[in-house]
Amino acid sequence: MEPVKVIELKKSIFEANDRDADNLRGELKARGVFLLNLMSAPGSGKTTTLIQTINRLKDKIRIAVMEADIDSDVDAIKIKEATGVESIQLHTGGMCHLDAEMTRQGLGGLQLGQTCISNQPDLVILENVGNLVCPAEFDTGAVKNAMILSVPEGHDKPLKYPLMFSVCDVVVINKIDVMPYFDFDLEKCKEYIHMRNPKATVIPVCAKTGEGIDAFAEWLLTQVKNWKS
Amino acid sequence: MEPVKVIELKKSIFEANDRDADNLRGELKARGVFLLNLMSAPGSGKTTTLIQTINRLKDKIRIAVMEADIDSDVDAIKIKEATGVESIQLHTGGMCHLDAEMTRQGLGGLQLGQTCISNQPDLVILENVGNLVCPAEFDTGAVKNAMILSVPEGHDKPLKYPLMFSVCDVVVINKIDVMPYFDFDLEKCKEYIHMRNPKATVIPVCAKTGEGIDAFAEWLLTQVKNWKS
Repeated sequence: MEPVKVIELKKSIFEANDRDADNLRGELKARGVFLLNLMSAPGSGKTTTLIQTINRLKDKIRIAVMEADIDSDVDAIKIKEATGVESIQLHTGGMCHLDAEMTRQGLGGLQLGQTCISNQPDLVILENVGNLVCPAEFDTGAVKNAMILSVPEGHDKPLKYPLMFSVCDVVVINKIDVMPYFDFDLEKCKEYIHMRNPKATVIPVCAKTGEGIDAFAEWLLTQVKNWKS
Repeated sequence: MEPVKVIELKKSIFEANDRDADNLRGELKARGVFLLNLMSAPGSGKTTTLIQTINRLKDKIRIAVMEADIDSDVDAIKIKEATGVESIQLHTGGMCHLDAEMTRQGLGGLQLGQTCISNQPDLVILENVGNLVCPAEFDTGAVKNAMILSVPEGHDKPLKYPLMFSVCDVVVINKIDVMPYFDFDLEKCKEYIHMRNPKATVIPVCAKTGEGIDAFAEWLLTQVKNWKS
């Protein structure tokens, strides 16, 4: 069989917001606030994973959450009800990603500026728009990037969304409870992830049952402590 | 409990490509070529659904496929091997969506211009980038838009990605075989879809087993015939 034809379409230019993101990271460092940017495809279980993780950490560190969504505020309400931590909704107005300026607006909504230093969160989690493409291209100013890949999406995703996997420090593989019903090869998935990013930490979990969440919470707590020291 | 705070982030301006898309549709109409734009989140089963559908239709009409992806050409190869129809890969170079100009470049790759009228495809299927946000914002010039929502993504997706559901003429609900393992309410999902788009056709399928694919193939064949008449 002859090879398929491949046509390269030209890439449009996204406005760089790298300097703005670096500035924001500097401000967060000065305040001792750790910002995690959590990304994934739609429906991979970001909110459920966050609830489980926050409930394991909220007695150890102060946590606040920014839930970004095109529309609706169901996720911010869910987080607030299930964990009790401060949770705000960011509406992107149709935008497919968050950049550093939008993140800064969100942090303003958390009233970081008005809070005295002893009262401010140690950890702010930004739940980005459900999208494996655009959020990877915009540095939000976060200290670390995390992503969730869920089993039903398939183990080939690192091949198809290379940038997302290469910018993430940790990849949480969610919904491992349904592994028997899908053709998902965990070892192959890890291999593909490490092709994109040899340093990525991979943590399999089931957010529904809580399996594996301790490991993710532990990873996150270590990152927060390192940032504040 | 007090309501969560909601912050509206400003929407950036996307360059309109509506006129270009209308022109492309006009050219396709003159040639009697029907273009379907198929969208979904990553891992919802677009390629598998296409293979099943094409194999039911390829003896009735001439079909060609354009597989858009950030990177890799696994999907175009898969389609070609599994169906034998002409299949080309479009690399978007990191872009999160296709617009009318990119679609036109793809159609050029199918050599529509060089083909004599009796030899050209009746149906061209464009498999868009896996993304529930950006592809919905750019008219590709397609005659109809279709999307796939898979059961593991959850029945609440029409609430979170309103534009995608409102621009699609048909919503295929895939992976209905795993319904028992997920909290997915099909009736609620249909209700949410019709909130966004009262005219949307909803077709539940399992692309893995072929269940429900006849209905989608039938819908598609009717659209192609209407367009050519």
